[in-house]
This record gives sequence, C-alpha cells and structure tokens, in this order.
Amino acid sequence: MIGRLNHVAIAVPDLTAAAAQYANTLGAKVGAPQDEPEHGVTVVFIELPNTKIELLYPLGDESPIKGFLDKNPAGGIHHICYEVDDILAARDKLKAEGARVLGNGEPKIGAHGKPVLFLHPKDFNGCLVELEQV
Amino acid sequence: MIGRLNHVAIAVPDLTAAAAQYANTLGAKVGAPQDEPEHGVTVVFIELPNTKIELLYPLGDESPIKGFLDKNPAGGIHHICYEVDDILAARDKLKAEGARVLGNGEPKIGAHGKPVLFLHPKDFNGCLVELEQV
Repeated sequence: MIGRLNHVAIAVPDLTAAAAQYANTLGAKVGAPQDEPEHGVTVVFIELPNTKIELLYPLGDESPIKGFLDKNPAGGIHHICYEVDDILAARDKLKAEGARVLGNGEPKIGAHGKPVLFLHPKDFNGCLVELEQV
Repeated sequence: MIGRLNHVAIAVPDLTAAAAQYANTLGAKVGAPQDEPEHGVTVVFIELPNTKIELLYPLGDESPIKGFLDKNPAGGIHHICYEVDDILAARDKLKAEGARVLGNGEPKIGAHGKPVLFLHPKDFNGCLVELEQV
C-alpha cells in the first residue's frame, strides 16, 4: 500500500538558522520559506536526490508545531510522510485494522496541494505518520 | 555535501509486531530480522521505492537503543541517515564549522557494511544524524 517516502518533517526552533545550516554546512538544495496558514506552519523544503526534508516552524497562535517545540526546545523529527495511490482506500483499510486517523478522518489538502491524513503515533511505534495521495 | 536519504531509523518496542504491521497493514516490502551485535541492535529493513525504513530493537545489555525506549516506551524515530561521498572530508568540514561528532570521531562500519559517523542532535535541530559513505 505505501509507496515512496515523500518527506521527513523536522520541527526547528530557528528556521533561518536551520535552512542556512542545511544549505551551507550540509550543502543541500534548500528552498525559500513558504507560509502555510491553513496548517499553521512556515515550511522550508530541502530537496535531496531521492526525497525531501521539510523544516517546520510555527505560524500563528494555533500552530500544531508550537506544543512540539515547547516539549522539544531544540527541535526534533516531527513526522514522516508515505505516499499512497488512493487515500480513501488506505484510510478505510487502516481503520478496519484498528488504526486511528487524526482529526475528523477526512483528508485535508496538505502543503503540497495533495490530500493528506495523519495517523495516531501510538498506533505506529511512536511515529506520527502522514499519508499523502500522489 | 549530503546526498540521498539512506534511511529513517525507528526504534520499536516489539520488532515482530512492527515488522508485521509494515508488511500487512501498510503493505510494504519487509526483510528478515538481522542481529548486529557490534551495534547492539536487531534490525528489520523496510524497502520503499526510494529509500529504506530501519526498524531497530535492542540487542544485548549495552544497546544504544535501550535508553531511547526507556524514555519513549511506544517507540519513536531514532535517527536519519544521509549519504556522503567522502566521510572523512564531511567530518572535517562539519567539525571545522563547530558540529560535534559522537564517539571518538572515527568512522565505524555500519549495519550496511559502509563507514558511518553520528552527529550530535543538539547541533542538528534535535535530530540524531548519521552520515554513511556510499
């Protein structure tokens, strides 16, 4: 069912510093910051040859990243995103096998303009898993 | 400097259950468990089309994963691994820019038979970063 690893998302306490570190110290291809007000984050994408790293920084008071950074002030890996062909079929299979889908269970449009869902970390070895239909 | 994302490593409290979940619930290609006594882990590799997930479970009393699972009983993302062409050149550049290399600073042979180094999470947004020479 799952396909490619679409991205690894890392919450960072200083987006400018983290982007500069990936560009200069690690020598990666780093994009410009993008505000995603519907998701409460500002995002910087790092393009690796086979996948992406998504640096996340809180945007607005309701940001889902804010609590994570309160608990992890240095930052940390926030979630991983797997691609699926059919997000509704994937959701229904996962729910039938007992996995919990976060929110109201309906896909939202994610940072890449594609339908996404998040799965409960307690059902997946402590990892917050995003599914993105591609 | 960094190239492909070689793998994402996830520490899990029950390796058999986690491998079965990736194989059956998530429908991924899952390998057989491999003991890596020099690294204190038993590993299951999950082959995605573009990268790998590495499920880690403690092996032996000195396992570096044991403390992580004590703090995170449900499991969690343990590290991410970037590929580099020349691990000594990468190490020297990183050290010159102030990043801390774990251990004695000399590469060890990792789970894939290639030289690896780990970088201090506090220098990389709370992420434990492995570099692997490919």
